[in-house]
Parts: sequence; C-alpha cells; structure tokens
Amino acid sequence: MTGHNLKELHHAYGFDDVAIVPGDVTLNPELVKIGLNLGDHHFEIPFLAAAMDAVVDPAFAIEMHKVGGLAVLNIEGVWSRFDDPEPILQEVASGNREESTAILQKAFTSPIREDLIARRIQQIKESGAIAAVSVTPRYTKNFAPVIQEAGADFLVVQSTVTTARHESTSVEGLRFDQLLKEIHIPVIVGNTVGYNATLEVMRTGVAAVLVGVGPGAGCTSREVLGIGVPQVTATINCAAARDAYFEESGRYVPIITDGGIRTGGDVCKSFVAGADAVMMGSPFAATTEAPGRGYHWGMATPHADLPRGTRIAVGVRTTLEKTLFGPTSRTDGTENLVGALKTAMGMCGAHTIREFQDTEMVIAPSIKTEGKIYQFEQSDT
Amino acid sequence: MTGHNLKELHHAYGFDDVAIVPGDVTLNPELVKIGLNLGDHHFEIPFLAAAMDAVVDPAFAIEMHKVGGLAVLNIEGVWSRFDDPEPILQEVASGNREESTAILQKAFTSPIREDLIARRIQQIKESGAIAAVSVTPRYTKNFAPVIQEAGADFLVVQSTVTTARHESTSVEGLRFDQLLKEIHIPVIVGNTVGYNATLEVMRTGVAAVLVGVGPGAGCTSREVLGIGVPQVTATINCAAARDAYFEESGRYVPIITDGGIRTGGDVCKSFVAGADAVMMGSPFAATTEAPGRGYHWGMATPHADLPRGTRIAVGVRTTLEKTLFGPTSRTDGTENLVGALKTAMGMCGAHTIREFQDTEMVIAPSIKTEGKIYQFEQSDT
Amino acid sequence: MTGHNLKELHHAYGFDDVAIVPGDVTLNPELVKIGLNLGDHHFEIPFLAAAMDAVVDPAFAIEMHKVGGLAVLNIEGVWSRFDDPEPILQEVASGNREESTAILQKAFTSPIREDLIARRIQQIKESGAIAAVSVTPRYTKNFAPVIQEAGADFLVVQSTVTTARHESTSVEGLRFDQLLKEIHIPVIVGNTVGYNATLEVMRTGVAAVLVGVGPGAGCTSREVLGIGVPQVTATINCAAARDAYFEESGRYVPIITDGGIRTGGDVCKSFVAGADAVMMGSPFAATTEAPGRGYHWGMATPHADLPRGTRIAVGVRTTLEKTLFGPTSRTDGTENLVGALKTAMGMCGAHTIREFQDTEMVIAPSIKTEGKIYQFEQSDT
Amino acid sequence: MTGHNLKELHHAYGFDDVAIVPGDVTLNPELVKIGLNLGDHHFEIPFLAAAMDAVVDPAFAIEMHKVGGLAVLNIEGVWSRFDDPEPILQEVASGNREESTAILQKAFTSPIREDLIARRIQQIKESGAIAAVSVTPRYTKNFAPVIQEAGADFLVVQSTVTTARHESTSVEGLRFDQLLKEIHIPVIVGNTVGYNATLEVMRTGVAAVLVGVGPGAGCTSREVLGIGVPQVTATINCAAARDAYFEESGRYVPIITDGGIRTGGDVCKSFVAGADAVMMGSPFAATTEAPGRGYHWGMATPHADLPRGTRIAVGVRTTLEKTLFGPTSRTDGTENLVGALKTAMGMCGAHTIREFQDTEMVIAPSIKTEGKIYQFEQSDT
Repeated sequence: MTGHNLKELHHAYGFDDVAIVPGDVTLNPELVKIGLNLGDHHFEIPFLAAAMDAVVDPAFAIEMHKVGGLAVLNIEGVWSRFDDPEPILQEVASGNREESTAILQKAFTSPIREDLIARRIQQIKESGAIAAVSVTPRYTKNFAPVIQEAGADFLVVQSTVTTARHESTSVEGLRFDQLLKEIHIPVIVGNTVGYNATLEVMRTGVAAVLVGVGPGAGCTSREVLGIGVPQVTATINCAAARDAYFEESGRYVPIITDGGIRTGGDVCKSFVAGADAVMMGSPFAATTEAPGRGYHWGMATPHADLPRGTRIAVGVRTTLEKTLFGPTSRTDGTENLVGALKTAMGMCGAHTIREFQDTEMVIAPSIKTEGKIYQFEQSDT
Repeated sequence: MTGHNLKELHHAYGFDDVAIVPGDVTLNPELVKIGLNLGDHHFEIPFLAAAMDAVVDPAFAIEMHKVGGLAVLNIEGVWSRFDDPEPILQEVASGNREESTAILQKAFTSPIREDLIARRIQQIKESGAIAAVSVTPRYTKNFAPVIQEAGADFLVVQSTVTTARHESTSVEGLRFDQLLKEIHIPVIVGNTVGYNATLEVMRTGVAAVLVGVGPGAGCTSREVLGIGVPQVTATINCAAARDAYFEESGRYVPIITDGGIRTGGDVCKSFVAGADAVMMGSPFAATTEAPGRGYHWGMATPHADLPRGTRIAVGVRTTLEKTLFGPTSRTDGTENLVGALKTAMGMCGAHTIREFQDTEMVIAPSIKTEGKIYQFEQSDT
Repeated sequence: MTGHNLKELHHAYGFDDVAIVPGDVTLNPELVKIGLNLGDHHFEIPFLAAAMDAVVDPAFAIEMHKVGGLAVLNIEGVWSRFDDPEPILQEVASGNREESTAILQKAFTSPIREDLIARRIQQIKESGAIAAVSVTPRYTKNFAPVIQEAGADFLVVQSTVTTARHESTSVEGLRFDQLLKEIHIPVIVGNTVGYNATLEVMRTGVAAVLVGVGPGAGCTSREVLGIGVPQVTATINCAAARDAYFEESGRYVPIITDGGIRTGGDVCKSFVAGADAVMMGSPFAATTEAPGRGYHWGMATPHADLPRGTRIAVGVRTTLEKTLFGPTSRTDGTENLVGALKTAMGMCGAHTIREFQDTEMVIAPSIKTEGKIYQFEQSDT
Repeated sequence: MTGHNLKELHHAYGFDDVAIVPGDVTLNPELVKIGLNLGDHHFEIPFLAAAMDAVVDPAFAIEMHKVGGLAVLNIEGVWSRFDDPEPILQEVASGNREESTAILQKAFTSPIREDLIARRIQQIKESGAIAAVSVTPRYTKNFAPVIQEAGADFLVVQSTVTTARHESTSVEGLRFDQLLKEIHIPVIVGNTVGYNATLEVMRTGVAAVLVGVGPGAGCTSREVLGIGVPQVTATINCAAARDAYFEESGRYVPIITDGGIRTGGDVCKSFVAGADAVMMGSPFAATTEAPGRGYHWGMATPHADLPRGTRIAVGVRTTLEKTLFGPTSRTDGTENLVGALKTAMGMCGAHTIREFQDTEMVIAPSIKTEGKIYQFEQSDT
C-alpha cells in the first residue's frame, strides 16, 4: 500500500488529546499578566462570549463588560427579529430536542429588522459597555452601515468557514479589503482553521481572527458535512500564520480560539496552543445571566434546510462572576476559569500569555481509567 | 524488537478517524457541480443504492431513477427466487435477530429463476428507468446472457473480494476480459480495496469499480474472517490506481465507495478520499420506499454455512427524497445528503468532484466528549 | 523532552487493532491446504486445544483427535489430583466469580499423583488418539519419566514465560537441552513473545514453540504484573525468530499462537502474523464436549498467593464439530472457524499457510460505530 | 498544514498505555532484591504511602514502618489543625461527593498548630518508627525548624509542581540550596515531571525526587488546569535526569513515582519506566488501617478557591499486610503488590530494581475486549 502516489493524512488534535507540561520555573499566580488588546481597546481578561442567542443578549453583554471581557451579540438572531424574543426562547427550552430545531427554523423565517439592530446596540452602549455584534458574510454589506451608525465598537463577520476569497453567483461577493475601506470600526473575522486562509484574512487588515470549525458542543458539522479540525491543531496552525504575518507586517493580529472550550483545562490548552484570547459558548450559557434557560444551540441550528447544530442541555449552574473568578467547590474545571489560567501560567513559569504560548504540550489522551477499580468495588459491596 | 526482519503494519483509516479541512477559498453551494458519468449514462447525483434485498426492489429502482441516481438490484436475491418475496421479507422482519439469519439461509435454498431475472429487469425498464443488476462471479456466465437480453443497462459483478485473477477448481473460472467481449453492456466490478487489484481490474475494460471490503453496517467480515480495510484508506488506494490507469490509458474509470456510509459527513469524506460516486445501503434501507420494513442485512448473510452479515435495525425514517435533498430538521447528518455534499464542497472551494478529491483531510478521531460535562449536570440536577 | 537519553517505547498490536488486506489474486476455498506437521505427526487442521482444566479432559482430547486437531491435557490440574474431579468442577461452576478462585486454590493443595498422570495418558491412548500433556518447568524433571513411560506422544512444557536460560535457587534448574537428551518424545515449549527468547529455545531442539503472554480471556497478567505483549506483535516477533532459525539450521520449528483467540477473524490474523497453528481456550471451553460447564479459567488462577487469572463465563454454545466446521447461522465469527480460515485464505490468494503468512495486514482498530445511528433510532421509536 | 513553523507535540504515555515485555532469561522470584536506600535509611520494600489525610495518620505511619516501607504524614492536613480530627474525617465520609469538598475547604480554615506538628512526629518516633512529614513550599521556612526539632527523619517538600527556581512576590521565596544548609535531615522534593526541572532540583542536594503531576485518582489537574503528564513518560524523563546527574556528580538520587498507581501492574511499570520507589494513595487508602473510612481525596481538594481534587470511593478492602504481601484470591492486581513485583522481576530476568529499569516496555493500550463475546452470551442466555 506504499510506494504509490497516495493522498497523505496528517494527525490533528483536540483538547482531550493533549496535556500541558509544567515548566522548569514556577511563579506565584499574582505575578502573571493576562490582559488582551483588541483594536484600541484593552480587556482585563482574554475571554469573549460567543455570538449565540442562548448565550448573549444585551443584558449579558453589559454584565460581561463589567467583569472585564467582551460579549458578541448575534445581530441575525432573535434579538433583531423580535421586539420580545423571550417567548421564542421559552418555547425552545420547553420542547424536546428534536422539536427545538424546527421551532428555531420557523422563528428564523421572521425578517431581521434594522431598527432592532440599532436598538440592541444602543441598549449596550447606553450602559457604558463596549458593543460588539456579529453578522454573516451574506448580510454584511446590508447591515454594516446601520451597525456602524448605531455606535457599535466591533463588527464581527462570522460564518462556519470564512476566507478572504469567496466566490458567489451574485455579481459581487463580500471582499474584506473593500469593507475595511468603507467602515471605520475594527472588524473581527472568522472562522478559520488553516495557515493560508488565516494569513490571507490578516492581510486584508482585520483586527482579529476567530479560530475553529466544528468543535463546539452544539455543532454537528463533523456529522453533517464531515468538516472540522480539532481545536488544538487549528489554533497551532493559525498562531503560526499570526506570527508569520507579524514578521512580514509588524502588525500583531490576535487570534481567538472559538468553540469546544468547556473547562479551565481547555482554556489553558487554547493559550498554550497559541491563542491570544478564547471565545466560549457552553460555559457562559450555563450562567444565571444567560438568556438560554439552561439550553444552548449552535448558530447553524436554525438553517432552513440543512441545520448543523443541535440544542444541548447545559443547565443553569452558577453566576458569570463565579464561572470566571470563583471561589468554587467544584473540582471539574468548570468554575474559576481565570484563577485556573493564572495558576497554570504560574506552574509553567509564564509571566504573560505570549510566554504561555511557548509552553510544552504533549499528546496524552485523557481516558479516565484512574480510580476505576476502587470505585467499582465501592458500588459493588 | 527492532533490527530483525519483522512484518510491517501500516495504518488504515475509516470515516470516524478523519475530518475534512476547509479550504483557502469558499464558494456558494449553487456554484458546485456533482454529476456522474457512468458508461454512456449521465446521473445528476453521484449516489447509488446497494444491491441488497432490503434496499432495492424494482419499485425502489424506479424511484431512485426519478431522483437522479442509480439503484442496483441483486439478481441472486429474493426477487429472482420468488414470484412474491413479500412474505419472506415480512418473516425476516418479524423474527428476532438470531432467527433472521436462519430464515434467510432457508429462503436462499430456493433456486434462482431466469424468468424472474428477466421479469424484474423488464419491470424497471418499462417505467423508463435505467436498470442495473448484480450477480456474483460464480453465476456471471450463467446469467449474463439473460440479463443482457432482458435489456439491462448495467451488469454489476460483485462479491466480497473480486480480482482480475481468480483461481478455481472448475476448468475455467470467470475472466473479465473474456466476459467483456461477450456482452455489450457496461460492466461494473467489485469489491476491491487495493491499488494493484484495482489497476488490474480496470485494465480488463470495466466501466467502474466498487470499493470497500468489510465496513458496511450489516457486514461482519472483520469478525468472521479478519478481513477488511477501513473505507478512507481503501478509497485512497483505489483512487491512486484510477489516476495511474488514466495516466497509462487515457480512459477515466470511476470508483464507487461502497459500504459504511451513514451520514453526510461520510459521503463528503468518501469524495475527499478520492471517490467519484458513493453506494449506500443503510441510509436507503431506512427510507419509506425501501422493501426492508426498517431492517437491513448484508449480502453474505444468507450464506449456507458461513454467514458473514447480520440483520440490523435501521427504522423507517423518512422518504428517499428527503434523505437526499431535505429540507430537514435533523442535525445528525442523516438527511439532505446532497445538500450536505454541495455545502461542504462550497466550504472547501471545490467547483467539481474532481477538485473536491484534492481537499486536505486530517486524522481526527470523532470521540464525542464535547458537551459531556454540561449534559451530565443537566440530568443530574 | 527530546534530545536526552530517554527509554524508547515501541508499538505493539493485538487482534482488535489489525485487519487483513485481501490480495490481488483470489482462490476458491477448496484449493487451500491447511495441514500442520508437528514432530512426526500430521494434523488435518492447525488447531490445538489449550491445557486448561475447563477445556481439556481425556474425553475432550479424544474428540479433538477425531476432528483432526490436538488437545493438550494439563497434567498438573484436577485430573492428576483427583480420581474424580467432577465435584470440584461442579463447585467452581456453582460459586460466584470471587469464590471460584478460592475453591480452585484449595483444590490445588491436593497433591499431583503419578498414578493418575499415567492413567489419564492411557485413557487417551486406548482410544487411538494422540496424547499430549503439559507440565510446568518446575515439575518437568519429576514427571517427564512417568509421562514418557505412560506413552504420551508430546510433552508440553509451559508456564507464563519460559526461556532457555532460567535461574533458580535449587542446585540445578530445568535445562531444555539436557531434557531433550533424556526423553525421546517431541517437546513443545512456551510461552514466549520475543525474538531472542524464541530463537534460544528453538536452538535447544524443541519441536514447537507456544507464543503469547497475557492476552487470554481468563488471564490477568496485565493487571497483576503489568506483563504482556499483544498477540499480533508477539506472533510477528516469534515468526521472525522461526524464519531466522530455519535459515541458520535448516530445521523448521512451528510456532503456535496461544491466547486471546475468540473468532475466525482472530484465527486468520494469527496466521497472517506468522503462526503455523493456533491454540485456543475460550472457544473450546464453550463447546458441549468441554468439562467446564460453561465456565473457563486461566492456568495461573489456582496460584496459592498470587492468582493471575479469573473465571469467565463462556456459556455452552454448540458442539466442537460445529465450532470448527459449521454450518452455522451465527454471524459473530465464533463458529465454523476452519471454514473461515479457508475462505479468508481464498480471498487473499493463499494456497498454503506459508503463503497466508505473507498477506498484508493493516492497523485498523475495530471500534464498532457503523450502524450506530440507525440502531439507536430503532430502539428509540 | 506542514512546512510552516508549527508547534510540535510529542506523545506521552500512562500505565494503561504500556505493557512490560518478558526477557530472555527468567529467575525464581526468591532471587530478586527490592530494597530501597533513602538518605541513610534502608527500607525493605520500595513502597511509600502518600501524604494525604485519608491515607496516613500517625498510626498508619507506624504500621507502614512495621511492614518495611515508609509513610509520609501531611503536616498541613487535619492532624496538625485539630486535636482530634476524627469528627472531620467522619463528616467527609458521610456527606455526598459534592459536599465533601466544601467540608474540607471549611476545615482547612482552622490554623496549622506547631504544637500539633511536634506531637504527631513524636507519636511516630515513640513507636520506634521512621517519621517523614510533608509541607508545601509556602510553609517550609515556617515549619522546618519545629519539624527538625521534633525529631523527624525526613522532610518532604511537596506541591503540585515544584522547581528549583520559584518566583514569588515576597522578598525571598524558598530556595532549596539555602534550606539544605539550614536543616540537617534529608529533604525529599516534588513533584516534577521533566528532565531539566528534575536535574536542577537534584543539583540543590536533595535526597530524592517525587515524580508525577496529574495522574492520581483523586486529582483533577487535567480538567482544572490542563496540566499533567502521564506517569510512564514522566518517570522516563526523570529517570534520564537521575542518570545524567549520577554521571555528572557520582551521587545517586532515587526517584519516586507518585500518583495513579492502583495495581501490581502499575507498580511494575513504574520501575520498568525507571523508578527507584513508588508512592501510592488509593491502594493504601483502601486498607483497614487507613483513616479515610473507605474514601480518599487529593491534597489540592481543600484549596480555598480552586480545588483540584475530588473525593473518590475506594472502599475498605483488606489489611495493609495483605495489600503488600498477600496471600490473596483477588485476581485484579490490587493485592500482594510485593509478590507481584518479585514475580514480574523474575519473568524479566531482573535481579535488582536497577536491572528491572532496563526491561523492554511496549505501547499496548489495555482496552479489554478479550472474552467479550462469551461473557455477553452467558448473560444473554
């Protein structure tokens, strides 16, 4: 089977496949710095909340600002289609899993209203928070003007896969270099997973790139399309593109690992793989501040004829504050994510996120067999 | 353990082991072309239905033609042994799994009738559909004349493993080069998994080659014989042989990945591995049009003394139309397979199946741990 | 973590990790030859029954001879300790799993009687069958004379791990070269897993070598001692030693893969890995002829202070005849093992076991996910 | 995805990933020597009990001395905070798993008392046993004087990750070279997993190094922080550092594999990976002599705002004596660990632990599929 001209397959790795190796130096956690610069803004913590209807509404965006991070509102979701989307969210939470997709598909036949786009941005701005909203490439030209005019601070152009070169049947597809000439707020683009695609997107002048296709808890792209790259490998690829672009241009464009992050361990692995920030859905959807009522679904779930996401139950676990900063009695890694990041950086001797990116990581599948024998015996006797 | 002359083992991969990597360019799905040329016929979709009694009867073949694909009727199955096989199919569906094998073994002691072979082909032809029927190498010489005479458009010669060089105790085994001189309809041969075997079969002049040994849902060759090659590696091997044969002869012989395909993701991975078309059993067996009543079994299941297949429950899920074209609210990849193919090709920047074959694929086992923590908590509280 | 002088670990593979690749030529099964030469005896089928109390008693040895194979009687087991061991076997089968080990430990405090050794061998010989009995190295000097005198045809010296160089505190340990001068029946030795150990044992003049440490169903050496080599790799290693020894000496010493074989697939993989014969416990323990009453345990289970085996339930499934030759309606590979071997050899174009040893094999873990979606749906609706 | 400057990931392995390969020579177990030299003390068995509240109290330390090993008392745990900690241990055992963490967090708000530190050490010394106590680096300067004065024989400085170079905000962090000038009892330091960190710690003059981050049964560092290295690879790394340090200095500093060891197999694999001794928690927590009442938890479990351990049920299984020396009827590897070690060394031809460290080991995941078919059948019929 060798010697012929066979297609080659390389290995790719996700969070559960790897572990971080502690360093030769250790630091007290209070010595580490974790701030994030995005456009002209500085954020105290490098955490973003994903642009999903069950995670971010205007109220959540305001809370996220208070704790030092950034939440992105999906401007093509229920908040721009309904004056009051609460009944829809309630209906999704009440039905069974199978029905919930159909409920969302139906709700998304209601049109996106420009007045609501403006109103949601203004709600966030009035509280003094930073407003970031997301659109898909398809609607970017339509809605970019009203988004800018309403005072948004960041425009996020996001779809499952985004490239600098998109071909469409319409006379003129979205081109990022042109878009960036027309609007004057920083543009974050995603998602990408590859070196070349990331490099090309960075060259158009964007402020940051979102990384990740397929790994999210509510995403079924792997089943439906076969497409997806595990997050550790995706982040390693895109971090290499960022460093190459910095080398060629002198401009440092942060990459944000987005999708599949559930625990402090996953957060830490994202940074060691090369991320500058992390974007999360599930962990924030499980906070008391989130609008999802203990449920969560992917952005491609409401797709009219080929939904590629599913509702998952995340429960309502604790507050946003505790999720990020603790203290906690939970030992499964789902709370005090900032504390976990600082502690891990200390154990690896990393003063900054940039130093943490250089930490060694090994391939070490986390099949949990430890303790098995004793736990079995316990229940057995 | 090294340094000696040890047998070497190479790695092989199946659908669940790999994922497709999105490209540097993206396309709107309406720009992609997915047609298939087989012999002198053009099919709008590169999907074939497998020659299995629970999947294809004459009525199903006609429906498959209407939607643009091709169904193959097993001419050694119940439709050529019984005037009315419905009671047999009912009996198989009613018994338990263990009994069903014995029921099939008994049914297959009834002889194959030439008059029924002709009648089934004519049933399909009368509707205006294309008629493709399968025989095993053992019976090919016997039945090829009546099949051709009855007006079949394709002869499929298929067994678990087929090679151009078969040795038998009878004076003269089946030789494809001789067969192709005697009959004048295109011959599709299979199954193969290796480079050399595929190349040799192509050199006999066949119209297409079926790829895959062991991976089907109803197939137990791995348990019974230890034989089998995971489909992604099998397809990569045979695609390399096809390209080498095209290089040497100028004739392009399509390969059809057959077995183990359950979802849109599997369909897409087949093409990225190098397939020109896919043949499926389980997904079609689960349609309302299929004769299997929610069950499905392998072609080697009725074998008299060494059955190598087993009945599996697939349920009756939806129509053939929805399975192929949607729309759907399912998010597990089992419906709208054509939509999934076009969407994935768009995300990978592939205008044609040939371009899609060049897409990058990575080894990335799909162990589903994402969402685990939250789902557990949900059911726990 | 690289660049230093680190211990290296190589990969090893078992039956479930690999699959056989069909060849470029195919044969009708009736063309294949599978006989085995051991000492001066020829066996029609290359199958041995393991020297375990639940598998082989004198009656089973006689039945195994009738079907063309060879059964080995454990001469240190219950048949040489009790005039009538049936009550012990009944007690083991009646207790729970935990108790069964203690019952065996107690039974094995009864001494081994030379008169019973002789009587069991004579029982077998009187029927006209070939008599093979096993001893551990520790008792070989003591019992070899009575075994030879009683008319045994083969002496099997077997322990978990056997080497040509054993050090003990007694003045003189067992040396195979000396043993072979003193007794005149062929000696089979095992178990080994490595190239060097196998080569050294062959040079002492033994008739065959048993291969395998740790993989048997009733063996827990992996848990208790951490010791074990998966059977495919063990067989590959020892086959290389056999070929090297043949090269240097001109004498062909068969290797017998022993342990962990459950299905026709495992049988076939053993030969492709390089075996000349297979020895099985579980599949024979499950026959109606076996004395184990549906249970089975490892030879190290009765060890007084460190048992390394456990009783497992195998059920009473079918006859020895059907296990080996079928016909069968089972599709899980547990019946018609000879038919499976011949069919697989045919698919790989192997006329003889020696040719079958050259067949390609790939690493392809048999995680069964195929059919999952549909089976789930079925039970769900 | 290749050709760019991508971060590299190497493979790491744990106990369940590997198996020991038997050697070319075998020994009777009575010929092997397993003693351990630590500082000026000689121990008959190379087994240490971990400094955990559920494993070691003064009474357990005395028992461990009697059987020839060494137990370490955690001097920052409940025995130095409470005159009578039994009610706390009872409370932890009585609550559910979730509550137990909070109970421990609350208990650890009680201060560590110097009088109790002294009293616990004296309790152990009065019995004639060797006293070893552990502190974290943070409290080492505070408590080292009282520990030395009370007559302890070993000071163990232990935290999740320890390096020779720790940076803290306080004017002067702990430096091992300075500590070793000030106190005159041997100092054991841990835990480390890497070559460089181990080498640097050894150069400060410590008596031994503890190896292992993350693998313990009660440890959740992998989930919470993403940090951890599987034990086999960690031990291989640190053993290489030990050998390099011996080469450069002529001083042999033993390494002690600590964490994740549950069975005799794990014990043996630790030594083959390069360990000079093993430290265990769970197996000792399950003895009748342990204070944990059938439960066990990690040392980081009581952490105030980021607990990284969890209570696990180990049951109360048997005595310390039987755990170490048998005899046993258990076949799962949890009893007679010393017998298992000697037996395995004999099978590998190793006279000493140093020779055992040179034994071959292979990567061979222990997925238990053997016996599956038969066990299933049994319960099915």
